[in-house]
Amino acid sequence: MKPPKALIDVFRKENSFLILTHTTPDGDAFGSCLALKFLIEQFSKKAEIYTEYPIPLQYQFLPGINSIKNINFLKVNEFDILVLVDCNKISRVSYEKEILDKIKTFSGNKLIIDHHIEVNISNDVKCVKWIDPEKAATGIMIYYLIKALRGDITPQIATNLYTAIIIDTGNFQFDNTTHEVLRIASELVQSGARPSYIYQEAFESWSDNRFALFKRMLNTLSVIPPLAIAYITKKDFDETQTQESDTERFVEFLKVLKDIYISALFREIQAGFLKVSLRSKGDFDVSKIAAEFGGGGHKNASGYRTNGSLKEAQQKLIEKLKAHSMLY
Amino acid sequence: MKPPKALIDVFRKENSFLILTHTTPDGDAFGSCLALKFLIEQFSKKAEIYTEYPIPLQYQFLPGINSIKNINFLKVNEFDILVLVDCNKISRVSYEKEILDKIKTFSGNKLIIDHHIEVNISNDVKCVKWIDPEKAATGIMIYYLIKALRGDITPQIATNLYTAIIIDTGNFQFDNTTHEVLRIASELVQSGARPSYIYQEAFESWSDNRFALFKRMLNTLSVIPPLAIAYITKKDFDETQTQESDTERFVEFLKVLKDIYISALFREIQAGFLKVSLRSKGDFDVSKIAAEFGGGGHKNASGYRTNGSLKEAQQKLIEKLKAHSMLY
Repeated sequence: MKPPKALIDVFRKENSFLILTHTTPDGDAFGSCLALKFLIEQFSKKAEIYTEYPIPLQYQFLPGINSIKNINFLKVNEFDILVLVDCNKISRVSYEKEILDKIKTFSGNKLIIDHHIEVNISNDVKCVKWIDPEKAATGIMIYYLIKALRGDITPQIATNLYTAIIIDTGNFQFDNTTHEVLRIASELVQSGARPSYIYQEAFESWSDNRFALFKRMLNTLSVIPPLAIAYITKKDFDETQTQESDTERFVEFLKVLKDIYISALFREIQAGFLKVSLRSKGDFDVSKIAAEFGGGGHKNASGYRTNGSLKEAQQKLIEKLKAHSMLY
Repeated sequence: MKPPKALIDVFRKENSFLILTHTTPDGDAFGSCLALKFLIEQFSKKAEIYTEYPIPLQYQFLPGINSIKNINFLKVNEFDILVLVDCNKISRVSYEKEILDKIKTFSGNKLIIDHHIEVNISNDVKCVKWIDPEKAATGIMIYYLIKALRGDITPQIATNLYTAIIIDTGNFQFDNTTHEVLRIASELVQSGARPSYIYQEAFESWSDNRFALFKRMLNTLSVIPPLAIAYITKKDFDETQTQESDTERFVEFLKVLKDIYISALFREIQAGFLKVSLRSKGDFDVSKIAAEFGGGGHKNASGYRTNGSLKEAQQKLIEKLKAHSMLY
């Protein structure tokens, strides 16, 4: 799978690149952005990444992470090209209007490299898009871009891309774990990525508070096969001194039960404002459910935001799953 | 890495094979035995596997699992060759003297295919050994045996070998996850193994009772960095109607905490008789600790049995870790 020629041409011709990704970036976002930055720098060109701060604890081991700048201090017009990575819409870069407005003043050409499904196709002529929802991670696309540009897979790049892959495949457990994913992972290990070290840093760096939050969540579990639902209230976050990023992978754990094919975790970010994460096994496509609530994601891993009480939101999800014959 | 010629010769020449493995077989044991049986049958030869019954719930999806016979009904002298798989000592096949005595009446030649460290080297001249502790799983060795014998990697074999690999690498999280492991996993997927399906069956088939047991265990957690200790009492097993095989992977979860490099799970099988599982991250070698208690295993995953109370056993482990400068 090769990147479009128009995209390769931009990397060959232009000299300075602004790299942005989606809000609350995960390991595929950070890993892909950093690998791309290292790649561009191999050609003695300028690349800078701006994301939301603070960077979550579990990604602070990534090579190059300290070079990422705080999006609050973004100056867009110091760059020739804006590259959106693991994201296909400017509106997904931030929740803050001020930041979005600033990005919209960017007058140069844009590139999009993403594996999420594009919901509303735009006709921006100044934009070269490479969107491939068949790819397990944007990190896989960056890998092919490196090959196309004949860059080197350095240990720094290998570590970032390996992280991107394990985050978006649940460490090789989701349906998107193909032989291609495992073959590329193998090559990244040969190039210097260390699987057990990366796994520890990305997945086993829980604080005691996070562990306490996890135990609280387990005690909220209710099971309506094939659905498992759990929730975390604002009070839980406050009392355990934790935040949203501390819940990463919690929802995946809820699938351990034999007859459970869909898991849902409701997180009360503020009173009346909830974030919902969905995970599924096999052919249960939860991205359809998330999309109907205005969210997005992939077949086995998606999410959405909603307003209302925890009880109302759970009821709405149950009704939606019934409407899609995923629950009876 | 090729199997020894003497071993290959035996598979080429002989016609009927009795396959045995260690007591309380895990996914590497079952997967390797079954892949070997399918391989032997490709050459129109006889192969039978005998193990302890019952076969745990999480392995009942393995292709060929129903062909495995109950070791209580073993008749050893119906076979030319005895093959020990994922095990290098007859004494490890069973705890029951009667069964071991029966196996010892076997008068033919023996083969050993294993990746565990051999503790007491025997000089049995009628035994061809292939022991390679460098390999992540015995399943990897069976893969090379198939290549050497020019067998086919059918979907049945691929599924069994993929299971063997993910059990012994913790689904690609332990230190033994090399580029070779990932490359072979990729080839097995190309040959028909389905990663997400196998992951679900092997790792996400918990009963409600098992989930209840897990929650009890989490509440026993005590942390003395870099050590995390948890325990399960006989009462916990009884009250949740669970058994030893329900605790598979529990000890791995205890490593999620950031400053924890060693996790230990004590399981009270009977009053005064305990099984202890150890897991570690990176360079902490818990196989040394297990060996001093008469147990065994690998650098990042090992175990032993001990007598006494939970409190005494925990204290002894702490002292041993201090003696090895793994704890201060």
